[in-house]
Amino acid sequence: MKAQTEISQINELYQTYREQALKDLYTFLKFQSVSSEAEFKTQVLACADWVVDYLKKIGFEVEVWPTQGHPTIFAQYNRAGPSQPTLLIYNHYDVQPVDPIELWQSPPFEPTVRNGEIYARGAQDNKGQCFYVLLALKAMIESQGSLPINIKLCIEGEEECGSHGLSQIAKTKSKQLKADYLAIVDLGLTEITKPAITLGLRGLVTMDVEVSSSHTDLHSGSHGGVAFNPIHALVGLLASVRNKEGAVTIPGFYDDVQPLSKEEKSQLALDFDVQAYEATFGTKPTGGEAAFSPVERNWIRPTLEINGINGGYSGTGFKTVIPAKATAKVSCRLVPKQDPMKIGKLVAHYLESHAPAGTHVKVTIHPGVGQAVRASIDSAVTKAFATAYAEVFQKPCEYIYAGGSIPVVPELATACGGEVVMVGLGLPDDCIHAPNEHFGVERIEKGFLTIVRALQLLKK
Amino acid sequence: MKAQTEISQINELYQTYREQALKDLYTFLKFQSVSSEAEFKTQVLACADWVVDYLKKIGFEVEVWPTQGHPTIFAQYNRAGPSQPTLLIYNHYDVQPVDPIELWQSPPFEPTVRNGEIYARGAQDNKGQCFYVLLALKAMIESQGSLPINIKLCIEGEEECGSHGLSQIAKTKSKQLKADYLAIVDLGLTEITKPAITLGLRGLVTMDVEVSSSHTDLHSGSHGGVAFNPIHALVGLLASVRNKEGAVTIPGFYDDVQPLSKEEKSQLALDFDVQAYEATFGTKPTGGEAAFSPVERNWIRPTLEINGINGGYSGTGFKTVIPAKATAKVSCRLVPKQDPMKIGKLVAHYLESHAPAGTHVKVTIHPGVGQAVRASIDSAVTKAFATAYAEVFQKPCEYIYAGGSIPVVPELATACGGEVVMVGLGLPDDCIHAPNEHFGVERIEKGFLTIVRALQLLKK
Repeated sequence: MKAQTEISQINELYQTYREQALKDLYTFLKFQSVSSEAEFKTQVLACADWVVDYLKKIGFEVEVWPTQGHPTIFAQYNRAGPSQPTLLIYNHYDVQPVDPIELWQSPPFEPTVRNGEIYARGAQDNKGQCFYVLLALKAMIESQGSLPINIKLCIEGEEECGSHGLSQIAKTKSKQLKADYLAIVDLGLTEITKPAITLGLRGLVTMDVEVSSSHTDLHSGSHGGVAFNPIHALVGLLASVRNKEGAVTIPGFYDDVQPLSKEEKSQLALDFDVQAYEATFGTKPTGGEAAFSPVERNWIRPTLEINGINGGYSGTGFKTVIPAKATAKVSCRLVPKQDPMKIGKLVAHYLESHAPAGTHVKVTIHPGVGQAVRASIDSAVTKAFATAYAEVFQKPCEYIYAGGSIPVVPELATACGGEVVMVGLGLPDDCIHAPNEHFGVERIEKGFLTIVRALQLLKK
Repeated sequence: MKAQTEISQINELYQTYREQALKDLYTFLKFQSVSSEAEFKTQVLACADWVVDYLKKIGFEVEVWPTQGHPTIFAQYNRAGPSQPTLLIYNHYDVQPVDPIELWQSPPFEPTVRNGEIYARGAQDNKGQCFYVLLALKAMIESQGSLPINIKLCIEGEEECGSHGLSQIAKTKSKQLKADYLAIVDLGLTEITKPAITLGLRGLVTMDVEVSSSHTDLHSGSHGGVAFNPIHALVGLLASVRNKEGAVTIPGFYDDVQPLSKEEKSQLALDFDVQAYEATFGTKPTGGEAAFSPVERNWIRPTLEINGINGGYSGTGFKTVIPAKATAKVSCRLVPKQDPMKIGKLVAHYLESHAPAGTHVKVTIHPGVGQAVRASIDSAVTKAFATAYAEVFQKPCEYIYAGGSIPVVPELATACGGEVVMVGLGLPDDCIHAPNEHFGVERIEKGFLTIVRALQLLKK
C-alpha cells in the first residue's frame, strides 16, 4: 500500500512536467547526432551542448571530456553527502545513421507521434531512455531541493561507432568514475507488460574477410573451369564454419564456454513464443544451434554470424565475370570467459589456413571488441531497480539476458568498481538501428517513475 | 611458293589502304555503341548508320532489320553469280559498358595506340574484327571490280546484351540468311604466333538466386542464434553444389555430357602453360574439376560459376545486421547435348528444394540461354580458313575450342543451313569486357590478309 502511495505521488510529479518534458525530448531528438559519419560532427557537438546545458540548469557540476571522436559528458550531483551511496548512470546521446531513408514514414529528425509512439531516430536508442533519466533528476531536484543519493552521469557520444573515446576515458578517469553502483540505462524488456532486468550481455568481435585470386576480374567463359573463383572459395569457407546442427566447427570456439548453473537458469525467464515471433518478424526462429532453445541460443550461446557478403556483379541483368576478389563481414557474439581477441584469432586462423589452392584469404579483426557481461541478481542496486519496476508495473520483475552487446560496459564497470545493473524499457520491435525507430510516450512516464523510485529505494 | 606470292600481293593491296583504314577504324571505335544501357541508344544507331554507309559505298545491297532493341544490319553482294558459293559472315557493332571507367589509361572512346596496340572499347570485341572484314571486302571490290564468291553480312547490335533481336530474326528471315557457309568472326587464338580455328563453344544458362527470411533487416545481437541468417543459407547452398574435387553435385547435371572421341581429342591443341597463366593472371589454374586438365575443364566440361553475391552490409566499418535477404548470380557453361533450360531448371530445383527451414529460395532463369556449338574440321569453309591462316602466319593452323559462349550462333547456323567456321584474332589478354581493351595494329593486317585469302580459296 505504501509503495502505491509513493508511485502515485511520483506520478503526480510527472504530470506537472509532462507537457514541457515532451517538448524538451523532441528538441533532443531533432539533433542529427549521427556519430559514425563525419558530416554530422557539428550536430553531434550541438546535441552534447544541449545536454550539458540541461544538466547545468538543474544544478549538476558538468565536465566535457574530449576524445579523438565525440566528447563524453560527465556530470555529478553529490549533495546527498558521504553517508549516502553514489550511483553512476550510463547513457549515450549519439544515434545510428538513418539509411535507408526512403523507408521512413516520417522524417527521422522530426519527431512524430502515431498511436502513442514517438517516431524518430534515437527515440528509444538512447535519447528516449537518456531523457527520462534527465527528467527524473530535474523533477526530484526541483520538487525536493536535492536527490536522495549521490549521482554521477556518464553520457557518451560514440556508442554507435565503437565507444573508442570512453574506452580510453575508463582508464584515465577511473577516479572520477568511481561509484557504489553502475546503472546502464540502454536495455529493454521482452514484452511491454513484463518488467525485466537484464543480467547478461554477450561479448562481440567483428572482422573483415577478403578472398582474392587473380590480378583482375576475369571472363567466366575464357576462365571458367580454370581460375578458382574467389566467390566459390568464400562460400565454401563460410559454409564450413558451421555444421548441419548449426554449431560452429572452428577448433577451440566453444572451449571457454561454461554452462549456466542450475541456479542461474532458474532465475531466468526462458520461455519463447514461436508464433508471436513468426507473426512479428515473418520468419521462424530456426537459426543457431539445434541443441538449444531459441532463448538459450540468443542469451547463453556464442554465435558466428555473416553480416555482409559481396563479390562480382549484383546489378540488373547479368555479367559473366569471375571477380578478382570477394569479401565478407563476420561477427561473433560471445559468452563469459570467451576472450574476444582469442576467438577473433581462432576464426581468422581457420579461414586463412583453409584458403583453397590458387586463392588467398586475409582476415582483419576490427578494434572495439567487447567481453560478455554478467550482473548479480543479489546486489543492492539490482534489488532496488527490481522493486521499483515491480511497483511501477504492479507485477514481479523478471530477469533476462540480452543477445546484444555494449562493448564498453565491462571497462566502465571496472572503472566504477561497483555492482552493475542493466535496465531500460526498449522492446524488440522498436526498430532501433532501422527505419521508423519508435518509443512509447507511456514508456517515458514508466521510465521516469522507475528512476525516481529506484533512487528513493537506494537511499540509506 | 605460289601461296606466298598470293599473300605478298594481298599485303601490297593492304598497304595502299593502311593509313586511311586506321582512320576509318578510329571513327568506328569512337561511337559509344553500348547496347545494354538505354542512354547510349542514339550512339548505337549512329554507329549502325556508319556501317550501313560504309557498305553501301562499296556496292553492297543493305537492309536494316529493326528489332525491339537495336537493329541488325544485313547486307549482300551476289555478283559472283550462282556458280559460286555464298558465305554468310557474322560480326557485331555493339560494345560492352566501360565501367570501372577510372581504371582506363586512355578514354575508352578515344582510340589511342601504345606499343602497336589500339586501346579502345570494342578495339577487339568486335569492332576491330568486324572492321578488317569490311576493309577486305572494300579492297577486293575496288581493286578487282568484284568478289570471288557471294557474300552476305549479318552485323548485329545486341551481342553484348543477349542477341534477343537476332534470335528472332534467325527465325523470321531464315530465307535471306541462307548460305553455303557461315563464318563467325568473333573468336581468337591462344597465342599471337599460333593461327587457330575454334571448333567448339560452350552453351550458357544464367540465373538469379534470392534467399529471404524475415520481413525486415534484424539486429544480429537481438536475433543472432534465433533467426536463420539468409547469408548463411546462401553460402551453405552455393557451397553444397560442388564437391571437394570441384565436380557439380546437382543430380543429373552431367547426365547428357558425352566424352570427346579419340579422334576429336587428337585434333585439339590441349597443351597449357601453367607458368605463363600464373604470370599473366596472378593466380594458379586451380578452378573446376580436379579430374581434368585446365584446357579440358575450360573447353569440354560444363561449369557452375557464381558471378555475383550480395547481402547485408559491405561498406566501411561494421554493421551488426542479419539482412532480410541475400542474392547471387549463377551461370552454367554447357557442352553439346546439354539443354540450357533443362540444366537451369535442375539447378533451380536443387537450390529451391534445399532451402533451410525458416528461409525461402527463389531462382529466376534469365532469357537468352544458348546451346553449345561444334564445328566440323572437315568442311570446305574450315579448310579454306585453315589454309589462309597457315599461309598468312606461315605456320600450320591449330584447332581449339573456346570456353565462352555466343548464344545466337546455333540459331544463326540453323537459319544459314551451311557449315560453320569460327575464327578471329582475339588474344586472352586483350581485356575484352574490361578496362583497357586493346587490339594490335598488326592483327588488323593479318585479319585482312586472312579474309581476302580465304575468299580466294573458297572460289570454285
